[in-house]
This record gives sequence, structure tokens and C-alpha cells, in this order.
Amino acid sequence: MSDVRDQLRSEAEALDAKDELAAKRAEFVLDETVYLDGNSLGALPANVPGRLAEVMTHEWGKLRIRSWDESGWWTAPERIGDRIAPLVGAAPGQIVVGDSTSVNVFKALVAAVRIARDPGNPSEGRDEIVVDATTFPTDGYIAESATRLTGCRLIPVAPGDVPGVLGDRTAAVLLNHADYRTGRLHDLPGLTAAVHAAGALVVWDLCHTAGALPVGLDEHGVDLAVGCTYKYLNGGPGSPAYLYVREALQPRFDSPLPGWNSHAEPFGMRPEFEAADGALRGRVGTPDILSMLALEASLDAWDGVSVDAVRAKSLALTDFFLRCVGAYVPTGRVESLTPAAHAERGSQVALRCEGAGDVMKRLVEQGVVGDFRAPDVLRFGFTPLYVSFGDAERAARVLASTLA
Amino acid sequence: MSDVRDQLRSEAEALDAKDELAAKRAEFVLDETVYLDGNSLGALPANVPGRLAEVMTHEWGKLRIRSWDESGWWTAPERIGDRIAPLVGAAPGQIVVGDSTSVNVFKALVAAVRIARDPGNPSEGRDEIVVDATTFPTDGYIAESATRLTGCRLIPVAPGDVPGVLGDRTAAVLLNHADYRTGRLHDLPGLTAAVHAAGALVVWDLCHTAGALPVGLDEHGVDLAVGCTYKYLNGGPGSPAYLYVREALQPRFDSPLPGWNSHAEPFGMRPEFEAADGALRGRVGTPDILSMLALEASLDAWDGVSVDAVRAKSLALTDFFLRCVGAYVPTGRVESLTPAAHAERGSQVALRCEGAGDVMKRLVEQGVVGDFRAPDVLRFGFTPLYVSFGDAERAARVLASTLA
Repeated sequence: MSDVRDQLRSEAEALDAKDELAAKRAEFVLDETVYLDGNSLGALPANVPGRLAEVMTHEWGKLRIRSWDESGWWTAPERIGDRIAPLVGAAPGQIVVGDSTSVNVFKALVAAVRIARDPGNPSEGRDEIVVDATTFPTDGYIAESATRLTGCRLIPVAPGDVPGVLGDRTAAVLLNHADYRTGRLHDLPGLTAAVHAAGALVVWDLCHTAGALPVGLDEHGVDLAVGCTYKYLNGGPGSPAYLYVREALQPRFDSPLPGWNSHAEPFGMRPEFEAADGALRGRVGTPDILSMLALEASLDAWDGVSVDAVRAKSLALTDFFLRCVGAYVPTGRVESLTPAAHAERGSQVALRCEGAGDVMKRLVEQGVVGDFRAPDVLRFGFTPLYVSFGDAERAARVLASTLA
Repeated sequence: MSDVRDQLRSEAEALDAKDELAAKRAEFVLDETVYLDGNSLGALPANVPGRLAEVMTHEWGKLRIRSWDESGWWTAPERIGDRIAPLVGAAPGQIVVGDSTSVNVFKALVAAVRIARDPGNPSEGRDEIVVDATTFPTDGYIAESATRLTGCRLIPVAPGDVPGVLGDRTAAVLLNHADYRTGRLHDLPGLTAAVHAAGALVVWDLCHTAGALPVGLDEHGVDLAVGCTYKYLNGGPGSPAYLYVREALQPRFDSPLPGWNSHAEPFGMRPEFEAADGALRGRVGTPDILSMLALEASLDAWDGVSVDAVRAKSLALTDFFLRCVGAYVPTGRVESLTPAAHAERGSQVALRCEGAGDVMKRLVEQGVVGDFRAPDVLRFGFTPLYVSFGDAERAARVLASTLA
């Protein structure tokens, strides 16, 4: 065993030495903990506290109301959207930041149904919303609400079964890019094409993939997408989510939450609603500036980073972690739920394990932080910007000793 | 003229000397500016930057994911709601903080229609939403969306005309407690009683009154209410809004935005939605922690403050300002749109003035900050926690010299 350990530790050192993203780790506040929960809450980027102190003391404290113009507060949702855009393969002008993921799912899904039912479309009678039955639950709850409010019927199916249920009645399909439990990556290009072939619109939830792998929204013709910013994007606890509306659809994007921030002339204070042009239609109320500007600062960590390099390191990290687990953990104690095939893997490893809740508590006590998902799953997220191969080896080692 | 000035200045000094809230001013970051725009963005409470630095560096930076439990992040929406509760006359357990005002108007209005149409009610056929036609526009836009999604008809009328349009078809009524332009305070007890007499539900928007005067939500039997926290509550730019759901209605509160945070067992990750008990039903997605905890810190300024004392000072300030304007400003140059009667006045003074846009620019250049509302209104907000009678006198004096 000690031979294997020596070998894997040397290998981790070698991989870290040639890691082109290694220097990024210094841009985050980290300690001796092995932090493998960035798929739930990204670590603190070191520049954020200083930037937010400036926002509070100068922009709010001194300029006060003038900051809406002078400090660029008013345009933050679209400006920050444009910084997220390249990370998910979108050209500028298609993403606005604000609200929670759940609220954005609602906007996207109701708007998708309305576009699908556009009287100008031959598809007016469409009345089904298909939803990924394995998705993070909030998407399903919101889809059910959207269904109820638009007079549709909800069809929950596993992502693999989606093509089989699509048809003339499908208005919109809501899918999660990666399964939050298993880390399985779904086939975004293939499923998008299948939805389009049926004449329907697709909404993708990118919470578990944005910042971890190339998404290619524009390239694959995705209609609408949403995502949070507090996982691989490290925007901070509950930082604002975002909404992508494909440029070609923007003129027909008819929001169920037409707040004054989405008005063509917000300060005209006109009683009649007239939607703004472009992605601004996805805005609602006054943007949450402190959280929004913390997110903006956190995105500095992406300067000079290629998403392809991130993906390459992510796969190398999860491969290496799985090898270490295989080498260290006694046979039969854990079972990987995460697909071995790269094309089907996100940036986390999920291990089924008896007594997973207690096991995770003991790991955390020993400085290896992942999380537990009921009833029996250990989740380990690998954020390529700050997780090292040494971290992966140590996590597997501590897991093995905990299970021994 | 100089006699009048000397007299009003002395009076201001005397009023400030006996102001029981005067010491509160030191709890805010202020400078030589006369800041009369707290009805748009409250000034920075001095304790907020320090508290938020701690949240960032310790809670996010060191504890990271553990802070959801250990730092009380998860329960922040209801905990902070309970701190706002006494300021609006609500017992604990009825307010949750989160999302924007617009989003909360949507939740409240759709939920109100659903309660009004409860099959157990004799009022099943109700299909009208009455909305304050003079309200801040976003409320009207959202009411129109709620109308469309629930199959209702929208009836926009001036608040005074509301009683005349209520009837068997009224499901819900959305009213603003104070007119954002004129500062006119509407009759919350009387209008609430009229709506109830018609068998309908009322939703009050408290953006322009919470923190400036007693609201009495419980006392007057208000059904649902929403409000922002960045005006008289000083929570910061775009800080999260809140939703009040009267305790008796909570079991029937059926949210159109049932995110995972409103689930009875959020971490059960169950595909079926089951609403939590109580005001938690008004939560949606992951709460925006940085903004939320800045708001929480800002509420420390209310410790030991009676809302009645705030109201008394607010009326004294606006009375005094109007007197100074009357004494200093040449006759005919401005006209007050704000009611003289105390019962009809909020905490702002609105003056109609030719060239108001330019006039406000020049006031701001001279250190008197109010704001301009198209086409011809100068707005001056009086936040009793930090505005002095000396500020009011100086603002009127600078206005007079600007118009001379």
C-alpha cells in the first residue's frame, strides 16, 4: 500500500507542477482544508472583500444615489452578463444577471411556452412542458407552477427518455446540464437538436456546469438558459443567477415578471408596459448591488483562463481522484455513480457509500470538505481554478482511512 | 428676509436640540451634504462595512459551506423578517425577506387571487384585480402579468376610487401606501376594510412608508404586504425586499414561485412539492446572503427606536421644510404636491417646479440631494433617523437661492 501511496503522491506532485492553472489558486482564500465543495459554494476570491469595501464606503457611503449612474450600478446586470457570456459560449448581449435560479427558470419557461404558442406559429396548440425528472427539485417545482399558470401539462421524464416523449404538443423542455447527485453530464447538443426537431423550445439549467466545462450555448442553438453563480463561478453565497435569451428570440421574449427594470424607458414611469430591447427583457426589479458587484469582482479570476483548459484539468482531476479512490479504498465500500466516460461526466464525483452522512461528517472533521446528499451519496466537487491534484490524492487517502 | 432666516435657523437649532432621535445620526455615514434622497436610497449605516467584511472573510472565506448552518445563513430570510416585523406592526412569523419588490408583488397577488377563488369560498367566480393606477409603475406591470396568468381582468383606478369599483367579482386589490411622486399617504385602514367588506383580499406595497411611519399590518387586518428595504430601512442598494403573509392566511398561501426554499423539507430533495408551514412559503430560491446580511446589520439602527417617535419627527421635519420653503422661495416658483393634512402625508415633500430637472442638478451641485421625477417634480425625502431640522432649513435656503 505504501508503494502505491508514494507513487500516487509523486504523480500528484508531477501533475501539479505542470498544471497551467496552478497559479490561479493564489487568487482564492484557501487554507489547509481540501475544499471539494465548490460545486455547492465556491471559495472566496481574494479580491472580493477589498472591492466590496470600496463599493460600501465610497459608492454607497459617499456617492449614495449618484452611484446608480456614476458607479455603473444601473447597468450591472447586463455588464456582468457579458462577462459570464464567454464562459458559457455566448456572444454579448444575451445574458442578464439577477434574481435566483428558480425565478429565472420561471421567466424562461413561461416565455418559452409563449413563444411556442405564438399565434404566428403553426404550433399554437402546444400544451406540454417536458421536465427532467432527475433535475434539482426546484426546477421541477417551478416547472409545475409554470405548467399550471399557462394551462399546460407537465411531463417529467429522465433526460435519456426525452426524445421519446417529444411531439406536436411539446411547447418547452427544461433540462439540467448535469445531474446534481451523480455528476452525470447530459447531451446538450443532441437533446437541443431533438427538441428543435419537434418544434419546441429548450431551457437548460447550467448551475452544475458553467465555469467547469464548455457549454456552447450559441454554437448549439440553445434557446434559453439559466444558472447560478455561486458554484464554479465563485460569486458568493446566494449570489445572483443569470438568464440567457438567444438573440433571435429576444423580440418574442414575453416575460411573466415584467418589472420596471425591463421597461424600454424605466425612468419614464409610464403606466403602460413596453418591453426593452434585447436581453434586458429578462430584468425585473432593482438589482441587488452588493451581491452583484461581489460577483463581478469574483469574475476577475477568469481573466486569461480558457474554458477548454478548465475542462481538461477537471477531467484529469476527477480521473485521478477515482484512481486514488480505487487504489486506497477497500473494495466494495464505495461505488462511483459518476460516469467513467468523459463525455458523460461533469466536474464532480459522487460515491455511494453506506452511512454516507456520518462518513462526510468525519471527513469534514479531518479537513476534507465535500457534501452529503440523502440517502447515501458522498459528493466531491472539483473546481479547476483552485483544486490541486495533491488535494485529490489527500481526499482519497482520508476517505480510505475513515472507511478502514 | 434676513430676519426670517435668522428666526428659522434659530428654530432649527432649537428643534434639533430637543430631537430625541438626534443621536441616531452618528450611526450613519454622512458628510456636509444635505441628503434628502433616503426615500430612494438610504444612507450607509456605519456598522455595515465592518459586519460585511466579517461575513466575507470569516463566514464565506473560512467556514465556507458550513456557514449555511453555523453562521445562520439558511434562516436569514425569516430571522430578518422578524426584525422588520415590529417596524410595520406585525407579530413575528409573518415576514420573509428575499427577492425584489416586483417579484414579491407577483407572489402576493397571484396567491391572493388563489385564496379568493378557493373552491371552499363562495367567491369562486371572482376574476378582477383592482390596482392603484397611480402606483409606482412596476406594481401595475406585475399586476397586469398576474391578471393575464390567472385569467383575471385588470381594473386600474385611483386609490380614492377603489371603494366604488369593488364588488362580487373583485378577487384582489393592490395598493401603494404612499404615492411615490406626491408623497400622499393613502388610507390603509379604511381601504383595507372596504376591500374586506367586498370579500376580496388586499396587498399593500409599503416601499415608501416602512421605516417612516406606523403601518399597523396586524392591527388593520392587512392580508398581504410587500416592501423594499433600501429606502427608509437603509438596507443598501437593491437590498432584498420582503413579503408579509397574515398568519391566518398562511395555510392557504399557494405561491406561484414554489422554489426549493419554500419546501417543507428542502434538503429532502423530493420531486413532489410540499409547502413549508408559515411565512416560509414566501421564500423561493437560495437567499442572497451578502445583501441580506448587510440589511440585517443596517437594522441595528432601529434598536431602541419607537416608530411613533419617527413619525412625529417626520411630520415635524416636513412641516418645517414646507414653512421654510414658503418663507424663502419667491411666490409662484414652486407648488407643493404633498398634502398639508398630516393624515395624508408620508415622509417626503414633492414640489412642482418649472425646469425641475435642471433645478435638481444645481441643488445637487450645491450639496442638497433630492431627486427629480419627470416631468416637473422635485422630491425631497426626510429620513427621521438622520435628517436634521438644520438640513431642512438649509435645503429650503439653497432651493430659494437657486430659483432666485
